Amino acid sequence: MSRTDTASVDPAWLPPEAFRALGGRRTLIRGAGPLVDTVRGEVADACGRFGGRLVEGDEPRDLLLEVVDASDGIDVDDSETESGPEGFTFARDGGTTTVTASDGRGLLYGLFHVVRLGEAAFDGESPRETHRPATALRMLDHWDNVAVHPVMGQVERGYAGGSLFWRDGRARGETERIRAYARLLAACGVNAVCVNNVNVHDVEARLLTDRIGEVAEIAEELRPYGIRTHLSVTFAAPVVLGGLPTADPLDAAVRDWWERAVRGVYGAISDFGGFVVKADSEGRPGPFAYGRSHADGANMLAAALAPYGGVVHWRAFVYDHRQDWRDRTTDRARAAYDHFAPLDGEFAHNAVLQVKHGPMDFQVREPVSPVLGAMPRTRLALEVQATQEYTGQQRHVCWLGPMWSEVLRFRPREEAGASVGETARGGIVAVSNVGDDPFWTGHPLAQANLYAFGRLAWQPDADPLRILDEWIALTFPAAPERLAAGLHRVLDGSWATYEKYTAPLGVGFMVQPGHHYGPGVDGYEYSPWGTYHFADRDGVGVDRSAAGGTGFAAQYAKPWSELYETPGTCPDELLLFFHHVPYGHVLHSGKTVIQHIYDTHFEGVEEVAEALRVWEGLADLVAPARHARVAERFEEQLRSAREWRDQVNSYFLRKSGVQDERGRTVY
Amino acid sequence: MSRTDTASVDPAWLPPEAFRALGGRRTLIRGAGPLVDTVRGEVADACGRFGGRLVEGDEPRDLLLEVVDASDGIDVDDSETESGPEGFTFARDGGTTTVTASDGRGLLYGLFHVVRLGEAAFDGESPRETHRPATALRMLDHWDNVAVHPVMGQVERGYAGGSLFWRDGRARGETERIRAYARLLAACGVNAVCVNNVNVHDVEARLLTDRIGEVAEIAEELRPYGIRTHLSVTFAAPVVLGGLPTADPLDAAVRDWWERAVRGVYGAISDFGGFVVKADSEGRPGPFAYGRSHADGANMLAAALAPYGGVVHWRAFVYDHRQDWRDRTTDRARAAYDHFAPLDGEFAHNAVLQVKHGPMDFQVREPVSPVLGAMPRTRLALEVQATQEYTGQQRHVCWLGPMWSEVLRFRPREEAGASVGETARGGIVAVSNVGDDPFWTGHPLAQANLYAFGRLAWQPDADPLRILDEWIALTFPAAPERLAAGLHRVLDGSWATYEKYTAPLGVGFMVQPGHHYGPGVDGYEYSPWGTYHFADRDGVGVDRSAAGGTGFAAQYAKPWSELYETPGTCPDELLLFFHHVPYGHVLHSGKTVIQHIYDTHFEGVEEVAEALRVWEGLADLVAPARHARVAERFEEQLRSAREWRDQVNSYFLRKSGVQDERGRTVY
Repeated sequence: MSRTDTASVDPAWLPPEAFRALGGRRTLIRGAGPLVDTVRGEVADACGRFGGRLVEGDEPRDLLLEVVDASDGIDVDDSETESGPEGFTFARDGGTTTVTASDGRGLLYGLFHVVRLGEAAFDGESPRETHRPATALRMLDHWDNVAVHPVMGQVERGYAGGSLFWRDGRARGETERIRAYARLLAACGVNAVCVNNVNVHDVEARLLTDRIGEVAEIAEELRPYGIRTHLSVTFAAPVVLGGLPTADPLDAAVRDWWERAVRGVYGAISDFGGFVVKADSEGRPGPFAYGRSHADGANMLAAALAPYGGVVHWRAFVYDHRQDWRDRTTDRARAAYDHFAPLDGEFAHNAVLQVKHGPMDFQVREPVSPVLGAMPRTRLALEVQATQEYTGQQRHVCWLGPMWSEVLRFRPREEAGASVGETARGGIVAVSNVGDDPFWTGHPLAQANLYAFGRLAWQPDADPLRILDEWIALTFPAAPERLAAGLHRVLDGSWATYEKYTAPLGVGFMVQPGHHYGPGVDGYEYSPWGTYHFADRDGVGVDRSAAGGTGFAAQYAKPWSELYETPGTCPDELLLFFHHVPYGHVLHSGKTVIQHIYDTHFEGVEEVAEALRVWEGLADLVAPARHARVAERFEEQLRSAREWRDQVNSYFLRKSGVQDERGRTVY
Repeated sequence: MSRTDTASVDPAWLPPEAFRALGGRRTLIRGAGPLVDTVRGEVADACGRFGGRLVEGDEPRDLLLEVVDASDGIDVDDSETESGPEGFTFARDGGTTTVTASDGRGLLYGLFHVVRLGEAAFDGESPRETHRPATALRMLDHWDNVAVHPVMGQVERGYAGGSLFWRDGRARGETERIRAYARLLAACGVNAVCVNNVNVHDVEARLLTDRIGEVAEIAEELRPYGIRTHLSVTFAAPVVLGGLPTADPLDAAVRDWWERAVRGVYGAISDFGGFVVKADSEGRPGPFAYGRSHADGANMLAAALAPYGGVVHWRAFVYDHRQDWRDRTTDRARAAYDHFAPLDGEFAHNAVLQVKHGPMDFQVREPVSPVLGAMPRTRLALEVQATQEYTGQQRHVCWLGPMWSEVLRFRPREEAGASVGETARGGIVAVSNVGDDPFWTGHPLAQANLYAFGRLAWQPDADPLRILDEWIALTFPAAPERLAAGLHRVLDGSWATYEKYTAPLGVGFMVQPGHHYGPGVDGYEYSPWGTYHFADRDGVGVDRSAAGGTGFAAQYAKPWSELYETPGTCPDELLLFFHHVPYGHVLHSGKTVIQHIYDTHFEGVEEVAEALRVWEGLADLVAPARHARVAERFEEQLRSAREWRDQVNSYFLRKSGVQDERGRTVY
């Protein structure tokens, strides 16, 4: 095992200073077990730095951190254990702050709650509050390859350097950095990590069997922070690893093979979380080859995992990526619903269907996937993308908290029904944006996305702006008001800004094919991947209505199906996703579509320029290396935003012939 | 040295059967030297196969192959040596065919002339004809990398497998295959090969110094067929290899370094041909970095090579590949002329300026480069591209003989002036289309391009259709008329067909960026590489007139400058290269531009379908492996041609709003 120089890694939202309030106090810790040891270590470190101390027995204390075992029934009333697994209660009374949890994980989350509160945790009185995560699984999927992929590299869609776990075909073995990563994740509420890419290539396939030891070594470092390890596996494993002639999920030998494989995995990692599977998608193998359903495929793996408490996350990202653009009856947006909704009720209890938040592919604006409202008898997980594949690739500031919050608050079944955040019983998952970059995320401000993901996964109805300010306060402890306000200003609204200068009104894509960075208005217009805008000299957009289009709008429950069905009721920001309209169509905003395109593209660039000015004004308040890194990326963002503005505006001027009513330069 | 199984390599235009007429005769060979030995070996092989024999002294003979040394003055009248170096005379008189040359190379070319003639070489009487090459240098540039490039692979723009010379960073050492390649080249008239890519990366740079031995081993195999070896070098070699602080061409230490390097090269390869240099182009280093001109750069290398008779080929492919598409004053087409024409007269006698045939980059249709008519005091080489980068990548049949012939016959200075073929005193060069594919060129019919290149380089005013039939007769000896006619039909006109279904009317590009295969109408429209069509709802094309455009048309001498200046006189096939016109503009053909686009795209696909039918009808006459390979590529060509047709037609229908007047399907 090589050691990482963790001093060279950014402390992100856990700088030593964030522990000042805690570290100056007297803390009593009650409980036992590895996670309690982790809590004790954190407190001891903080005390060593800030002069407080760990106390014992009846000594006076400022803070009590206590695991109360609900099962022993002694000295515990029911209300104290109501927090459930991973939950905790927080109270302050008579000069003592008390955190109570029913397990070590809850105590760890309670500890980080105290850290977040800072001095406020030790101030005045607080009635008892109970905190518990909305969902039991809050996962980061790493699209990390073990071997460098010839096209996708070490990390597929990774914009933060290499992988934390793998390099050039081998485990890096950098235990300290992995431990530091686990600590950051625990501090925002993440409790699961999938350590390899959902596209499982030849080398990666072997992690399941003869290379499971390398996964176990990662699990060893994640475990002390309450994080379980998951593994992406290939559906074809019985063939490619086991030498069987088939991977048919109903074949007895195949089922035996998986049972043996799973036994081997749990032999190496007793608290292993489960599998992530991308099957029958973009060329990956799957049950279709054997005439079986996705439920057959997922349930076969679920059966193998069930005896050990493991879960399979089966991705719903299944569509035809060899479409013929000439065939307008095919609509990629429909695919997940068409494939999976008929299978509702057929999945095993530990088979979770992992659904991307939108029907397409992590665009800057999509409607919420109708699958999320269509499968009440299936455990669904929501998948979002922290890595900024389509949102600026960590060269642009694009804080995604508000996007994810909108999705989580959306009520897909009916206006008064449960929200996505409430119904995602199978978990909330993000594709990780982290790599071996010293700032973890390439763009230092992209740390805010990772943090916001964890916090929203814990509490989906949280106010994202509160989370943003929380991140600012932790990452920049004791920041002067000018710095906090500046950071807030740079990040808040950055998603809306990004949307303004890229693809308009929900139409999506318009990126360079392949790498997906920068504008390519027709990039996917004639592509087998199936994402089009159909712009011609008269209008733009995709008719997905039931009346005259692809019928995608009808995949929603009311009122959404009705709302989306006609241009008159469709929200502006999704208009071109659902309708093909003339350039002169008047939006609810009162602007025509073409003028909206011009205006937003000019505004977007101006907003980036303004954010850069704000950032430049913070130079005296931010560490030079961090300030320079962000400033350098801002320059690229501004250049790229101008490129987007000019290409999109020129494209639509040339097609529509309509001049900008304000006479600005369109090339 | 590993041996190649040459039996597994296609004999191309030198199948054993092509030697039947020669091999059945009695042949006397007079002369000495390595190339005469090669001739003797060829004849002996043929005789061994077909029953003839080599005779000596005064024995009766059917064929005399004779080197007459012009310098010894004995038994030679002047007319017998008029063929000059590499030339030969051919005559038949009194039952004896006589080939006379003044050197071994000429004798070798004379031998292959006899092979081409077949029985006709031994039939009746023939007055003496003199054959000599139009230019002393007929070269193939291999864009082969030694190490596999992460993006471009082993062969940049190679569509015929790996490199003949290099694999994974090392010389392949497959001497027999290299020798077989040299033999094919000699048989069509090529006499020089540059063995590595003009983009010289780190590994390749070392071929000049410590790895020159690997180049010498290749030269060893090329030499017996009269082929000299050339090397691409990096202008930065004194810095990257020599550790000097500069590569300034006027710096004494730099000049010394090159002198020493050249001395080392000639120490290893005494008949080394010279250097090929791509400088200040697409990121390659060059003299601009030191404030020096291209003449300074080229002349410095020329000075180092001069004592040994070596030549530097300095490429004129210099342009700004970081253009801003918004800046319409920059025109890539102008670049070579703007950079080089002012330097006319400044280049050393052994510094050859190598000029691409068109002002852009090997598009299916370009005007002839104005540089070719603008530098009378400079030795120019013409560069064409046998590898089909933009012409179907050896998946499409696209026989380029007629395109090259048009270029070679073009008279750039005045209508009655010298042709390009006559003025290319510095040589005629093609980028090779050969790799380690068993058919040499991937597509078996692409062999016809390599053959036609060599023959046109030897005789630029030759009728390309005669060359095509010559290739057919050699490659398919004793082909029945149906086969010969079928092959002719499939190949003749295939360039015009390719043009029909791709970018219309000289506008160029419209390909997928990066790999350049398949349609991407806007692929380069907003790109820094600088190639645009400016299509909008009203019209299409680039105004390069002097009156209102970029002024490129004025780079030509009269009458071309006048002809190209106005749409009324500009040839149809170049209209959109020189002018932006409305879709309703009427061509000389009588069609509107938009209808021309529709018609040619439908016709092009029909012509491919018809060629495929013709090919299918030849199944009984072509060896199964060859037939299958061509048939499989034809299927892809047809698919791709349809994709081109539909994307281009849809693009222009959506922009123009003008329906196809024949009501065919446009998506």
